[in-house]
Amino acid sequence: MRLPEELIDYIDRNFCPSKKEWKLIMDKSEEIRRSIFFLLRNEYNIVEEDLVLLGSVPRMTYLKDDYDVDLFIRLEKDIDIKLFIEFLISEISKDPNYKIRIRYADHPYIEMYVRDLKFNIVPSYKTSYPNWLSPMDRSYFHHLYLVDKGINELYKEVVRLKAFLKASGVYGAEVYVGGFSGYLVELLILKYGSMEEAIYNISKWSTPTIIDLEGHYPNSNLIFEVFGYNIPLIVVDPVDKGRNVAASVKRKNFSKIISAAKYFISNPTIKFFKESPYLSGSKSLYYKYKDMIKPDLPILIIYMEHGEKIEDIHYSQLERVSRKLKNVVEKEGFKIFKMGVYSDYISRSAIFLLFSELEKAKYEKVRGPYPYMSSEEKFLSKNSFRIKWIDEDGRWYTLKESRYLKADELIKHIIDNRLIRIPSEIYDKYSVIVMNESQELFLNNSLLSKWLINFVVGDEFWALPHLLT
Amino acid sequence: MRLPEELIDYIDRNFCPSKKEWKLIMDKSEEIRRSIFFLLRNEYNIVEEDLVLLGSVPRMTYLKDDYDVDLFIRLEKDIDIKLFIEFLISEISKDPNYKIRIRYADHPYIEMYVRDLKFNIVPSYKTSYPNWLSPMDRSYFHHLYLVDKGINELYKEVVRLKAFLKASGVYGAEVYVGGFSGYLVELLILKYGSMEEAIYNISKWSTPTIIDLEGHYPNSNLIFEVFGYNIPLIVVDPVDKGRNVAASVKRKNFSKIISAAKYFISNPTIKFFKESPYLSGSKSLYYKYKDMIKPDLPILIIYMEHGEKIEDIHYSQLERVSRKLKNVVEKEGFKIFKMGVYSDYISRSAIFLLFSELEKAKYEKVRGPYPYMSSEEKFLSKNSFRIKWIDEDGRWYTLKESRYLKADELIKHIIDNRLIRIPSEIYDKYSVIVMNESQELFLNNSLLSKWLINFVVGDEFWALPHLLT
Repeated sequence: MRLPEELIDYIDRNFCPSKKEWKLIMDKSEEIRRSIFFLLRNEYNIVEEDLVLLGSVPRMTYLKDDYDVDLFIRLEKDIDIKLFIEFLISEISKDPNYKIRIRYADHPYIEMYVRDLKFNIVPSYKTSYPNWLSPMDRSYFHHLYLVDKGINELYKEVVRLKAFLKASGVYGAEVYVGGFSGYLVELLILKYGSMEEAIYNISKWSTPTIIDLEGHYPNSNLIFEVFGYNIPLIVVDPVDKGRNVAASVKRKNFSKIISAAKYFISNPTIKFFKESPYLSGSKSLYYKYKDMIKPDLPILIIYMEHGEKIEDIHYSQLERVSRKLKNVVEKEGFKIFKMGVYSDYISRSAIFLLFSELEKAKYEKVRGPYPYMSSEEKFLSKNSFRIKWIDEDGRWYTLKESRYLKADELIKHIIDNRLIRIPSEIYDKYSVIVMNESQELFLNNSLLSKWLINFVVGDEFWALPHLLT
Repeated sequence: MRLPEELIDYIDRNFCPSKKEWKLIMDKSEEIRRSIFFLLRNEYNIVEEDLVLLGSVPRMTYLKDDYDVDLFIRLEKDIDIKLFIEFLISEISKDPNYKIRIRYADHPYIEMYVRDLKFNIVPSYKTSYPNWLSPMDRSYFHHLYLVDKGINELYKEVVRLKAFLKASGVYGAEVYVGGFSGYLVELLILKYGSMEEAIYNISKWSTPTIIDLEGHYPNSNLIFEVFGYNIPLIVVDPVDKGRNVAASVKRKNFSKIISAAKYFISNPTIKFFKESPYLSGSKSLYYKYKDMIKPDLPILIIYMEHGEKIEDIHYSQLERVSRKLKNVVEKEGFKIFKMGVYSDYISRSAIFLLFSELEKAKYEKVRGPYPYMSSEEKFLSKNSFRIKWIDEDGRWYTLKESRYLKADELIKHIIDNRLIRIPSEIYDKYSVIVMNESQELFLNNSLLSKWLINFVVGDEFWALPHLLT
């Protein structure tokens, strides 16, 4: 395959940082690195080399408009990380230019916003390969490995592949994406050599796909034994043979990127790099998809208002709640075809539910005992004024009027009566919206409209014929 | 248990033939027996003793208003039954008083109507116990056995029990009843001694129940091995140890009679002997059940018009057709809660179907391939303008508009396009009636109204509180 030059130009122009831009970010990062060093120097016995910039920025493999700067602090093993973080926070807080919040991965770290830069300040221990104490310590060796393998020469290929994955909605290892981490993308480029080759190879993937760059395992059977048998994608971490770098990739996204890759191979256009083209939420886009977003689609939205949230925690809670809700609603006799959760993590979230029907059958068939069971009398007196009969199987049956005929009423009942455990922090206020009654609402709420279009049309945009023409 | 005298009086008055009535029937039967003998005498080398009246009439164990007379002809083994029947028919046809039709059980026999009497003229072979050639030959020994065991002394108990079973809708071994044969009832009286004791014992039955009057088997394990393990009621034929006299009793009716017996024991009233009290089909009864026969009950009726039918054949065909129909309709996504077939066997039949809903959800979820399957392209192009997405399991899914949204349209389509095999003789004309649209129809059609009430309320009348008060 030979990609058109205009396409490559387009990608590079839109996603690859120029050397100049990169230099600027690096200079700023370096400045911050040094200032953090000065904050620590007196209290902690630390040398400047123990503060290292890691991740895609120093390797120049980041997407121009989508990157964090990772500053790792390599501490002596006897230092208490909690106390260290507390000290660092108190020091940073003195500077009004620094806006911070604490995050947790395997242990706490600091997210710091400095003007337009987002910094992750991550404490770790100064360990030697491969004897790290926490996953944070390992990142240092990831960096060394990639640089050693010459990722710098390939930085454009990495960026190009990231752009492709991002437009398909599968870039990012965060829970709410469930896609490909930056490190994973870099490994794929090391494996396949270029974006073109990577996409070509992805289009041939099927489940399970195994990549073992360093040949840590003699055969795939051993790999299955270590990582499990039912995992779509296993990429053995070159610096940690016990870790699957692709563990974050959901089955759904594994399928998604294969499908996108197949379509791209057969028709390589810039569409595949224009991020979610229909997600602007504009009225015109709503009208564009009107033929698909029919007003008779049985969609129900649980719309929530709340304060600012931490993405992955909030997303996980939303997902858990919606799964539990689905179970209860389906036990009551409704059928949910598709479910989606959305949030801006600032003030609004929503659970979208596509039903078979929003209204349920009026009656349910209820199975009773055999007449020779002692429970017959109770069943018959309990259902005395209901229709009932002995069926072919010799059991009593009756028809019961369904309690909740409407899905929205049932959902309100479940939430208001706490029939499922709902974390109190998930929302301050909620409402249940039935799609067909509220077309207006969507037209006047660009966020909801955007979510609706995404929910209905999906981000499998390559499969939409009118978007590819 | 001691039954109230008025109750016994009521039953006997309504169901037991008086000696006088019995004498009259026997005289008439005897007259016919002799005239048949004279028809045969010259052509067949036969003696008068070879024509025997069997069944409940000579034993006086028949229900006053519900009996046939069985005339068995015991032939020499070298006589061809088919030729014999042909000869007999040609002879009988000469007498304009005799109206006949040919029926088939194990071999052909003649049903003959003489004024108000129904005669079954059954050819059989003169065999000795237990070396009969056909089941017909065995009937003679059934008769001898019952008489030998003193059934004549107990004739009132037999009649009483038959009346109880009949009112509960489980009397008769015909396919369209699936209940207790007359012979079986007589055996139950021999076993339990009286109607009271029989009902009391039935109320204690559970599955499996085994009755082996003559102790043909040393233990029940052996009985299960011979008759099978999943049979609710096994009554070993005293004169044929390999035969289950209760083979005709459907599981449904086994359950039904236990339930009725339990209710009767706790409240022995004449209700249990008034045959299907709500089956008159009158308007007043319709209104009486109006609270149960709600107009919103999703009932659909396939109403058929036709010529005269033979009961068991027509019933079996109706049942088979309705079962096949149910399968196809449920495969299309509808749910049928209850099904019933009815016929007057003269000109009209109907299949009643109680649905969960008469209208289906507008959309169906259709599962597609995994993207790494070669069928992806076909699936996506086939569904190009439909909503589609890759679900959690990594497969493509789409929503398809359901073809038949209405149950009545689907059924018409199935019948008109012969999507199930429908015997051509089953109807001349059919229509599909949706219950809620046609309340008027039921009010003005007493037969349909009767069937409707029976279908909805069932003949488990003992479980209807307002009928027991």
